[in-house]
Amino acid sequence: MGSSPRIALDAMGGDVGPAVLVAGAALAFQRRDDLRFLLFGDEGAIRAELAAHPELASVCEVVHCDDVIAGTEKPSQAIRRAKTTSMGQAVAAVKDGRADAAVSGGNTGALMAMAKLALRTLPGIDRPALAALLPTLGDNDIVMLDLGANTEADTRNLIQFAVMGAAYARVILELERPRVQLLNIGTEELKGTDELKDAATALRAATALPMQFDGFVEGDKIARGDVDVVVTDGFSGNIALKTAEGTARFVTDLLKRAFTSSVRSKIGFLISRPATELLKHHLDPNNHNGAVFLGLNGLVVKSHGNATAKGVANAIRVAARMVREELTRKIMDDLDRFPSDHIRGSGAK
Amino acid sequence: MGSSPRIALDAMGGDVGPAVLVAGAALAFQRRDDLRFLLFGDEGAIRAELAAHPELASVCEVVHCDDVIAGTEKPSQAIRRAKTTSMGQAVAAVKDGRADAAVSGGNTGALMAMAKLALRTLPGIDRPALAALLPTLGDNDIVMLDLGANTEADTRNLIQFAVMGAAYARVILELERPRVQLLNIGTEELKGTDELKDAATALRAATALPMQFDGFVEGDKIARGDVDVVVTDGFSGNIALKTAEGTARFVTDLLKRAFTSSVRSKIGFLISRPATELLKHHLDPNNHNGAVFLGLNGLVVKSHGNATAKGVANAIRVAARMVREELTRKIMDDLDRFPSDHIRGSGAK
Repeated sequence: MGSSPRIALDAMGGDVGPAVLVAGAALAFQRRDDLRFLLFGDEGAIRAELAAHPELASVCEVVHCDDVIAGTEKPSQAIRRAKTTSMGQAVAAVKDGRADAAVSGGNTGALMAMAKLALRTLPGIDRPALAALLPTLGDNDIVMLDLGANTEADTRNLIQFAVMGAAYARVILELERPRVQLLNIGTEELKGTDELKDAATALRAATALPMQFDGFVEGDKIARGDVDVVVTDGFSGNIALKTAEGTARFVTDLLKRAFTSSVRSKIGFLISRPATELLKHHLDPNNHNGAVFLGLNGLVVKSHGNATAKGVANAIRVAARMVREELTRKIMDDLDRFPSDHIRGSGAK
Repeated sequence: MGSSPRIALDAMGGDVGPAVLVAGAALAFQRRDDLRFLLFGDEGAIRAELAAHPELASVCEVVHCDDVIAGTEKPSQAIRRAKTTSMGQAVAAVKDGRADAAVSGGNTGALMAMAKLALRTLPGIDRPALAALLPTLGDNDIVMLDLGANTEADTRNLIQFAVMGAAYARVILELERPRVQLLNIGTEELKGTDELKDAATALRAATALPMQFDGFVEGDKIARGDVDVVVTDGFSGNIALKTAEGTARFVTDLLKRAFTSSVRSKIGFLISRPATELLKHHLDPNNHNGAVFLGLNGLVVKSHGNATAKGVANAIRVAARMVREELTRKIMDDLDRFPSDHIRGSGAK
């Protein structure tokens, strides 16, 4: 590992193909020129894009793949085709040690299934989780997980998600002791499922870990900036994430409608345009791009399917930062420090 | 029942006390003068407020209660004090047939516990659900349930919630065949828990009911106006509702911050003020006030604790409409028409 992260890029994943992915890699490389790339996909199409970025081209190896995983493909079907596809080969490169992290903008379910099958879970982790960054009113983004890798989560899963999410927040948000909370339907200790209550008890006792466990958080407090890591099962996490996205779009759509409803407000809108641009910037998913599968023997980042070059560059930066900061080692260390038997599988220790 | 709904009003519930609740009743009475009220609480305080509304006073009976349920009181503790409190007596009036529906702005958990204990579930209903109206980009609000009456929901619960939510939408949104969807983490039939998949199968087969079952909906599609009733377990529903509230506040806070960030945008904001007032109106919870406990032998409406008089009036209108339209009978009829054994408890039929 060390200082030259090698990124395996699925150049075909996403809604727009190699043009955006190569442009994203070029942007990331402009900022950090120690990056190295393995690009997987249609060689002709990739080389055509690289022609416009000669400096990037000098640190890229292109690996031709015949096939692409479709956005609609079922994970069970996709894993059978892994070997011939750009996504499957990008993940395999991480497994083989030819790359330090994989980045793909393709089918999330397929990527997760391939990553799980090829890389397997870390010792001490029962199930991987999907984590992402969300914007807040505070100075920092927050980390939220699981966002849909698992439909249900038991007490052990929730504890492991908390440990992994805190390690991720230390690396990506550069926090020494991230504040961790469990998503619940109330903040009193009596609220919620037994799994949540038991996970809270265990996390409260884990004072030696580099995190500060602050009990429960409700859905309306996520974006306030009072918490750094929000831990939940994949069902609730997915519902919360998508409801937040939908509501943000709903409010901005209402706003657009309101601003175009009269000449007077149209003029007001034009005058205050810099202000609304600021709003747009803050809510733009490309500024928070890069969901991460945590808990595997290898780093895999999911970029938004419709990310811009800037979004792809952000996903690559997230991947590179996890490599540089040795996220996997940090997670393993924290698991070792956990004071109970909630972490290790019965056969693992 | 018929045309003169008698509303039992907990005049002490909520953050501001009798002043707002009496003013709300007066507003509702202005619109529909066939309403009749039973007001429960501190008789002196209530009569002082009624003095300003002589017309309302002529259709009100005041019942003095010594005690009030505190906002922080645990439900288990509150039900032991039901008899002496304004909330408990309002619910008891529905049970005794002295009122057709109860409205309270007090402690939600306590109200739910009292209502369940006093009124019991309808035959054929295993568990009541908390339903509310949410704003959308479409012409209508949507109904969402359960919002937290139950932490978990099995297949039977989900089906019953769907039937009750559809009946409520027919009454409140005046739709003949409301479009019903189950909240899930994907729209494919394979997605989600077994409970969701089994409920979807049963609802798809229930073609004789006055609803149109449209499968699954994801969190980001709730506010689009493509669905009328969103059905979910109380945990996910509560998370979704609160996340939506928090996100709407987050975006409007960002907007405020953006608009006050420069003189130019401040001027723009002032010019476009009518537009932002429209936005505020659309998002104001007082325009959607009144969550309902469905599935009990009696109608109970929970008003927001910090509702304005307009909000209280809306909650009263919701209660009166359920009485006039005989919601409980409609739910019973629909349960009878359900083509499977998913509805009736083993001992109920």
